[in-house]
Amino acid sequence: MSKAILTISVILHSGLVVFNPATAAAQQSGADVARAYRESHEAEIIGDFAELLALPNVASDSAGINRNAIYLRDALRALGIDAELLRLADQPRVPPIVFGEIRVPGATRTLGVYVHYDGQPVDSSRWTHGPWQPTLYTRAMESGGVARSMPVPGEPVDPEWRIYARSAGDDKAPLGALLPVLTAFREANVTPTSNIKFFFDGEEEAGSQHLREYLESNRDRVDDIDIWLFFDGPVHQSGRPLLTFGVRGVTGMEVTVYGPNRPLHSGHYGNWAPVPGQMLAELLATMKDGDGNVLVEGFYDTVEPIGDAEREALAALPDYDEELKEELGLAWTEGEGQSLAERLLLPSLTVRGLSSGNVGRLARNVIPATATATLGIRLVKGNDPQHMRELVEAHIQRQGYHIVREDPDHATRLAYPKIAKITGGGGYRASRTAMDVPIVQEVVGAVRAAAGDDLVLFPALGGSLPLYLFTEVMGKPALIVPIANHDDNQHAPDENLRIANLWYGIDLYAALFTMPPGATP
Amino acid sequence: MSKAILTISVILHSGLVVFNPATAAAQQSGADVARAYRESHEAEIIGDFAELLALPNVASDSAGINRNAIYLRDALRALGIDAELLRLADQPRVPPIVFGEIRVPGATRTLGVYVHYDGQPVDSSRWTHGPWQPTLYTRAMESGGVARSMPVPGEPVDPEWRIYARSAGDDKAPLGALLPVLTAFREANVTPTSNIKFFFDGEEEAGSQHLREYLESNRDRVDDIDIWLFFDGPVHQSGRPLLTFGVRGVTGMEVTVYGPNRPLHSGHYGNWAPVPGQMLAELLATMKDGDGNVLVEGFYDTVEPIGDAEREALAALPDYDEELKEELGLAWTEGEGQSLAERLLLPSLTVRGLSSGNVGRLARNVIPATATATLGIRLVKGNDPQHMRELVEAHIQRQGYHIVREDPDHATRLAYPKIAKITGGGGYRASRTAMDVPIVQEVVGAVRAAAGDDLVLFPALGGSLPLYLFTEVMGKPALIVPIANHDDNQHAPDENLRIANLWYGIDLYAALFTMPPGATP
Repeated sequence: MSKAILTISVILHSGLVVFNPATAAAQQSGADVARAYRESHEAEIIGDFAELLALPNVASDSAGINRNAIYLRDALRALGIDAELLRLADQPRVPPIVFGEIRVPGATRTLGVYVHYDGQPVDSSRWTHGPWQPTLYTRAMESGGVARSMPVPGEPVDPEWRIYARSAGDDKAPLGALLPVLTAFREANVTPTSNIKFFFDGEEEAGSQHLREYLESNRDRVDDIDIWLFFDGPVHQSGRPLLTFGVRGVTGMEVTVYGPNRPLHSGHYGNWAPVPGQMLAELLATMKDGDGNVLVEGFYDTVEPIGDAEREALAALPDYDEELKEELGLAWTEGEGQSLAERLLLPSLTVRGLSSGNVGRLARNVIPATATATLGIRLVKGNDPQHMRELVEAHIQRQGYHIVREDPDHATRLAYPKIAKITGGGGYRASRTAMDVPIVQEVVGAVRAAAGDDLVLFPALGGSLPLYLFTEVMGKPALIVPIANHDDNQHAPDENLRIANLWYGIDLYAALFTMPPGATP
Repeated sequence: MSKAILTISVILHSGLVVFNPATAAAQQSGADVARAYRESHEAEIIGDFAELLALPNVASDSAGINRNAIYLRDALRALGIDAELLRLADQPRVPPIVFGEIRVPGATRTLGVYVHYDGQPVDSSRWTHGPWQPTLYTRAMESGGVARSMPVPGEPVDPEWRIYARSAGDDKAPLGALLPVLTAFREANVTPTSNIKFFFDGEEEAGSQHLREYLESNRDRVDDIDIWLFFDGPVHQSGRPLLTFGVRGVTGMEVTVYGPNRPLHSGHYGNWAPVPGQMLAELLATMKDGDGNVLVEGFYDTVEPIGDAEREALAALPDYDEELKEELGLAWTEGEGQSLAERLLLPSLTVRGLSSGNVGRLARNVIPATATATLGIRLVKGNDPQHMRELVEAHIQRQGYHIVREDPDHATRLAYPKIAKITGGGGYRASRTAMDVPIVQEVVGAVRAAAGDDLVLFPALGGSLPLYLFTEVMGKPALIVPIANHDDNQHAPDENLRIANLWYGIDLYAALFTMPPGATP
């Protein structure tokens, strides 16, 4: 079947940059073409992906970020796609947007494809291999996988293999699947059925601080996008494919409390000098009850109640909590037995990090001078980031703390028994897209074509993306179309991608890019 | 005056190893000789001290520790003193004792001089200079001191200068003062009035795990010591010289609590997966009330009440707490206003370190897998280390925790909602020497001769030393004779010694080594 259709595509193909509209028959072929290409190039696809993963990509590392951006721009250009780096005037250190465009004459629809190429900061000492030394394993490390060499062309590839590296799952996986699809289409002259605009963000993990500025200063490039597809995040914990209509928002803060102005010998001063680690523990303990419910006044007051559609979607979700608890080694969960999906519809307060003095081999007999907690706050529809931070700050004040923004000077120290420095902020609101819009239904159809009946529809993902900029500011629908395995250790050491999930991404994107022309003009 | 006496000393001097007993006149000269030598060799003394400080000396660093030990042995030998490294059979990695001996024919008394040459582990990233790159400052960093070059011979030395390096205060300072005194005595042929045995420990900061074994296997070397002088610790917080008759004991533990078996994305799982940092905070908060009083059941039950002598000594202590609070930037202290000296007579429980995930630039959006606290427990007379640890462990159990000694396996995780790994142990009891023994009074007299009427007599120092081995196991009196400045940042980054305190050490040791022959046979 493929062969005859390919012939048609060749005839229709018209050049390097501008793709021709395809017939319905050719569109059908998109998934088959990509699948066939993948099956005959598995080693090469993994090799190319590893090349991308080897580029350090922390947003604050300007040189590294630029290498990633240039690599991606040139990869698109090599496929005959118009691509450029968007930059902000006079802000050369802000990670650029990699912007690319496939124009399809006659297409009635423009898809915006969002991926982010930056990754979370790393603590290399906690990684089994270097975070940017992509390493292939025969399966997950915790399942007894062992390291193995990269496959040579033609060598059989086990889809249970995992590739370990920072951003393997979050969020270079979509790039690792996208480029082979575009290569396959180019080689077989398959034309997408929509215009496609690629928008690759380089500071998502640093909070996408400049995303709004990028969108507003590039309205001419993005205003005609009809729907944004966020290629990001993991699939459902059950392993089933997932399509998500919203995300939690996010904000956070760092709280530092103070003991003596220098670390003191715990023998000479212990029992007399205030111990910041103890003070911080007592402060954090007031913020939640033993069941994980947040005790900060007003924390749940602005939550927008869920509607019938969400309730129905929730009811239809697979009940995977018990398997998940077993997998994660958990004998209890927060929220007194409520399901994970229910808990994701409430804002959360999480101790992401604690630090005071040292533990383990470096522990010393001191009363440290400070103790610091990094608190993450996840938001749901209705919560305003600044308001939520203010609630937590007011709570800290009610515990007797004087709030400062910088390390206190001597006079301040002597004036207040308890001092808390609160820093950080920013973040963004939660977002949710309506399920009944036609173009949304078209995408749901295409995803279902690739994913099958296993597809899980999820009202709101736990992870946060700056989706509100697209839905609330730009006024466009936005869906999250994840491909990574749920156990990919994203944001953590030994992040990885299961190869089968990379193959799923290839199937999925091919289906999306060749879905039948819809009703939307 | 000095000149005539020096002549007498020269006549009395009899050789390299064995010193002659000195006349009362020559003994008087000891302090003057040392003072004169110091005044004419200040740059050289600082230079030699810096050479010793440049040797890395963490007990676990076997190669570094050996370099220190050999350096000290050879320094003693160069002064004509019998010196050797004591080792334990078949334990070549245990830091050796540097043992040296000055035999004085006719002396009726043998002093044991204890110093430890190892230092606390370092977190180099928190030091202004490398911990083993001794750096001279014009005064304390926090008082606006600036780095300066080492003085050249003859250059005036400001006694307010500070030298920064690991162990500058704790506990190489005594070695930096001791060697010049011995050099001065050798050059001027001054003979000590007591036999002196030097016993330099190389793993005090690692808990002196082998000290008992060393003492027991070297009874022939140490059994004739009449009184142990511990050259260690800082002087009184007021800056006044100090003599201490006891120390707190010490023990501790590390407590790790468990969340999910791998770090989880705080968005996807936050509000559902248990957060170990929160659990640990809630656990620690149950251990003390807001005033710093320990709530662990039985924690204060075994405290031996202080007697009249201690009460009198306490009453005579300078009231320095308010100055100390001002200096340390503290607007409150634990214990509802009780004095530091009173608080040191109670056992303490201190959060020495906290760690979970990361904070600051490395903070990631995760629910960490674990959270760890290192707890220090200081003991007073009557407390048994193991019993005190058991009390804390029982408290943790009462908070619903299942106790393990190693990271829990999967089945254990699934069986218990709350799991705490408790590790560490060891430590030693507190110790106190009676003040009314004649030989103790002789030492008090010699210290007072060097220190003047400012001398503070302290029943029990806050810091811990393995003094109980000498007082309770060996049955000998033991005093602590500190010289370091109290603000020396011992056990912390930017440890330092004030040069004036080094000069005090020289005066003090010279007085001790030439104190009048006593009543003790």
